[in-house]
Amino acid sequence: MIICTVAKNGGHLAPNLGVVELTLALHYVFDTAADRIIWDVGHQAYTHKILTGRRSQFHTLRQYQGISGFPRRSESKFDAFGTGHSGTSISAALGITVAKALKESSHRAIAVIGDGSMTGGMAFEALNHAGDLNKNLIVVLNDNEMSISPNVGALSSFLSRKLSNKTLMNLKKDVEDFLKSIPGLGPNILQILKRSEDSLMTLLTPGMLFQALDFHYIGPIKGHRLDRLIETFETASHIEGPVLIHVMTQKGKGYKPAECDPTSFHGVGSFDIATGESCGSSNGGACAPSYTKVFGSSITSLAESDPKIVAITAAMPQGTGLEGFSQRFPARFFDVGIAEQHAVTFAAGLATEGFKPVVAIYSTFLQRAYDQIIHDVCLQNLHVVFAMDRAGIVGEDGPTHHGAFDLSFLRHIPNMVVMAPKDENELRHMLKTAVEYNGPVAVRYPRGNGLGVAMDEDFHTLPMGKGELLREGNDLLLIAAGSTVHPAMEAAERLEQNNIRAAVINARFIKPLDQELILSWTRKTGCVITIEENVIQGGFGSAILEMLQEAGCLPKSFLRLGLPDAFVPHGSQKIIRNLCGIDAEGIENAAYTLLKERHGQILRAIG
Amino acid sequence: MIICTVAKNGGHLAPNLGVVELTLALHYVFDTAADRIIWDVGHQAYTHKILTGRRSQFHTLRQYQGISGFPRRSESKFDAFGTGHSGTSISAALGITVAKALKESSHRAIAVIGDGSMTGGMAFEALNHAGDLNKNLIVVLNDNEMSISPNVGALSSFLSRKLSNKTLMNLKKDVEDFLKSIPGLGPNILQILKRSEDSLMTLLTPGMLFQALDFHYIGPIKGHRLDRLIETFETASHIEGPVLIHVMTQKGKGYKPAECDPTSFHGVGSFDIATGESCGSSNGGACAPSYTKVFGSSITSLAESDPKIVAITAAMPQGTGLEGFSQRFPARFFDVGIAEQHAVTFAAGLATEGFKPVVAIYSTFLQRAYDQIIHDVCLQNLHVVFAMDRAGIVGEDGPTHHGAFDLSFLRHIPNMVVMAPKDENELRHMLKTAVEYNGPVAVRYPRGNGLGVAMDEDFHTLPMGKGELLREGNDLLLIAAGSTVHPAMEAAERLEQNNIRAAVINARFIKPLDQELILSWTRKTGCVITIEENVIQGGFGSAILEMLQEAGCLPKSFLRLGLPDAFVPHGSQKIIRNLCGIDAEGIENAAYTLLKERHGQILRAIG
Repeated sequence: MIICTVAKNGGHLAPNLGVVELTLALHYVFDTAADRIIWDVGHQAYTHKILTGRRSQFHTLRQYQGISGFPRRSESKFDAFGTGHSGTSISAALGITVAKALKESSHRAIAVIGDGSMTGGMAFEALNHAGDLNKNLIVVLNDNEMSISPNVGALSSFLSRKLSNKTLMNLKKDVEDFLKSIPGLGPNILQILKRSEDSLMTLLTPGMLFQALDFHYIGPIKGHRLDRLIETFETASHIEGPVLIHVMTQKGKGYKPAECDPTSFHGVGSFDIATGESCGSSNGGACAPSYTKVFGSSITSLAESDPKIVAITAAMPQGTGLEGFSQRFPARFFDVGIAEQHAVTFAAGLATEGFKPVVAIYSTFLQRAYDQIIHDVCLQNLHVVFAMDRAGIVGEDGPTHHGAFDLSFLRHIPNMVVMAPKDENELRHMLKTAVEYNGPVAVRYPRGNGLGVAMDEDFHTLPMGKGELLREGNDLLLIAAGSTVHPAMEAAERLEQNNIRAAVINARFIKPLDQELILSWTRKTGCVITIEENVIQGGFGSAILEMLQEAGCLPKSFLRLGLPDAFVPHGSQKIIRNLCGIDAEGIENAAYTLLKERHGQILRAIG
Repeated sequence: MIICTVAKNGGHLAPNLGVVELTLALHYVFDTAADRIIWDVGHQAYTHKILTGRRSQFHTLRQYQGISGFPRRSESKFDAFGTGHSGTSISAALGITVAKALKESSHRAIAVIGDGSMTGGMAFEALNHAGDLNKNLIVVLNDNEMSISPNVGALSSFLSRKLSNKTLMNLKKDVEDFLKSIPGLGPNILQILKRSEDSLMTLLTPGMLFQALDFHYIGPIKGHRLDRLIETFETASHIEGPVLIHVMTQKGKGYKPAECDPTSFHGVGSFDIATGESCGSSNGGACAPSYTKVFGSSITSLAESDPKIVAITAAMPQGTGLEGFSQRFPARFFDVGIAEQHAVTFAAGLATEGFKPVVAIYSTFLQRAYDQIIHDVCLQNLHVVFAMDRAGIVGEDGPTHHGAFDLSFLRHIPNMVVMAPKDENELRHMLKTAVEYNGPVAVRYPRGNGLGVAMDEDFHTLPMGKGELLREGNDLLLIAAGSTVHPAMEAAERLEQNNIRAAVINARFIKPLDQELILSWTRKTGCVITIEENVIQGGFGSAILEMLQEAGCLPKSFLRLGLPDAFVPHGSQKIIRNLCGIDAEGIENAAYTLLKERHGQILRAIG
């Protein structure tokens, strides 16, 4: 069922196949109407959804008005806590555990968290607090030895007992010294003990770490043996104090193509079940490369001639398009784990030494590093480039993943420059512009394929803070940013068929704005619509509104289009953009309404 | 010198006295013109400043245009990385270490970080990455067994070897089982070994944790023995790979009153050196209680009649005013460590079970939890109350600590309600309103004393989204939020002496705005000034601008006052507010300018 639905609708495959038995065991042992299961990230909750009354709707997975690809409180009482971003489950489960204790209920909260999410600092904060509180929290560590890609970080080697030689040597020496210090052990005994050192080492890993944090540790146990899982969860359900159960699972279990290539089958579009081959993307231009791919190849090209460029990802070398870079420049590539906060300040450190770090993090995940962007990068005016993929509507992954806020949360930070390209070709030039600029600079671009435009061979540096007039027209001015430029052009063409001539400006820079260009065309048209794929509160349109008002040049006819002041649901990008009125049709309709109002105003003024 | 200056100017005392020898040793061993010292949080860098050319300016510490209380790159080349928020030093030092390696330089970066900062997830993210990279990073763990207050969290017990009995029991059992499993050990030998278990335990703590993360661990060593420190740093400077040096220090060392009460002497105002007694605050009303104190006593009162209220702090029970609450309701009070991300999602978990968590975090530190506010609280529309102390200008602590962005970063999040009280009495009613509302709600209030207004005995629930007309007037409308209401009233009184009658609205709610009240008085006056202690980009004034424009009611004469699009320097609140033009004088002057412009407009329109 999971394989068939995901093959059709796309979704997260490998993570779900890895936890089928785990999910069954949890629902068998716990009373999930009163005990609470929190699925970290939540992309592994498909079996859980099928088991909790959503079997008949499962075919609507991730489709508009269908069930969500993540747990959602509004969808089922069995979805105790909504998730999407990683590392939140222990905190939420601890909150619930404390609440149960305050209510004197004996029910439990269970956080199911992957070893990848454990690299995020938030999970550590929660473990540290949980160890201190000593309440009956259960943490199930779903250890598949991967995040989306293979894990990085010292912790993961520790979990998988692949301790470095140096660490092992140090530990062995400590033990040896200790043994020598004990009186009454003859050399023979010492010999026996020394031979046993290796087994002593197993004591020290990996349970030690969690025991040190005052957790009761159970494991590692085999995650595809239902009987063992049930037995273990039964035991855990009677333990007082926090318990960590270490379960070893295999991503993609039971579906050969996914077992063999779990990274590609982590999140997928539709694919052929027999072969596992992708059916291809339906977004954007038919054969156009994705923005992700263009980012990856462009930054690799730029790095060829600029040895100061280094690239940083938070556990997503594939998703961000940096795989090629990592192969070409392994010493200049850094995967820091699911650790956005550290990624940004690590970049700031590199920048103080004259490097040009390019931090590639999806818009929604960069929210995690908002403070570091302010405090470590912008306050010190350091040259860090933020490449924000998946800005705007991401589609089927829905509200936890839409990049809905970046224009608003970045543009109010002093020193920050923010750009958005109208197409994949312009993305190349913006990256060049960003690595040449000397200060904090962000480029945001959408999920999916480019428009299929011709690609310039050379890179050009764009003039700082200058927009581009794409189309002249005296009746109306459309000012668009990034992904909304193309729909604005399309709307202008449609309007022309009704004898309305709309000028179109590609803003290019959200901050600083091209005041001169925007003022001049605002004066010419007297009627302005701004369009952005971002919340309209405090975003691009607000920046233009602030600027026009300050310049004393705000026309009566002014309208901001963008995402509403509400969390936008999941569904295809096409459907959701239409719903929000930011596609060509929405812009066209808004133009008619605004012009009609304006006509009314003029009539009233005359008569 | 440090004691004398802090006694006069205020500042961080106990942390600095704890690291005098440590600082001397670092500067002795390392070539700090090329090696880089990063001071985590940075409030312990006074000795460093005195040693690096700022001795003669030290008396200007924390004063306007004087030297900063924190390391600042713009102040000295020896300040390698600016700090202020906790837990950033290892990330920055790792970035610098990697940069040095890429440049094939043998110089090192040294992060000096307190055990309190280690409870923040970002520090863990950085350790995890550093262990993986295996570069020559040096981390000095300055372990004084405190944050600002005594530390919480399992990690701190681990560091100080105060393992819980349960953990010790588990470990002992593991060792026993292991010993029994070794062939050839007679019962006598087993007896001897069992008696030695306690010393084996010392092997396992606390170096184990860092060794597990592939760090070379040295320590713990005495932090007030200069010779030992120098020797240890010398050794560390030749080790290949990441090193952690565990140094035990005493906060307030050498000044008796601070040694005895390091919490009170963490950050202080001016005080009497002989007795250690505070000279009293000069902010706000002479004998008025601080907003912090009013928050603490009010939330404790409210909790008396509402058992669902729980309170959460991120390592600042004193700073946030929650000490009284923690004593009155120990089971309903949670100090989570310096872990703002976890604090917010932990609160969200509690809210799903019907509790009313009040999360008290300073405005600037809440930036750390921006993603959790969106993803875990607002998306699920959970009832979490954010009490944001230190919103706006904080004064001498400067740009790392000003709460300059919260109105901008909160108001663009769907479902969020944002309030700001005009005085300490209104704060009480807003807290009552917030705990009765059912959804995400934030109250922001400034650092320092209240206005000394009369305090109502009862709590009142304020009508949601309704502002308050404080003063009528037909010439001009001043719309103010929070701390700017009182200056706006003062400005209105001054304007009246020049026959200008200004109406004043206390917005109370930044989101949702009181559209009716604001529209009606905008129409009456035709001339509007908004005033906020927050960046003007995307803030309160922008919200009003958006609203008036959408309603077709924006007057030609409209002006937003607030913090500029630049990082605001340190200095007294009075000086900085004046500099930003948001005190009574600034508002009065802005009013004259705006009215003069308006007069010109009217003349032009007539003539």
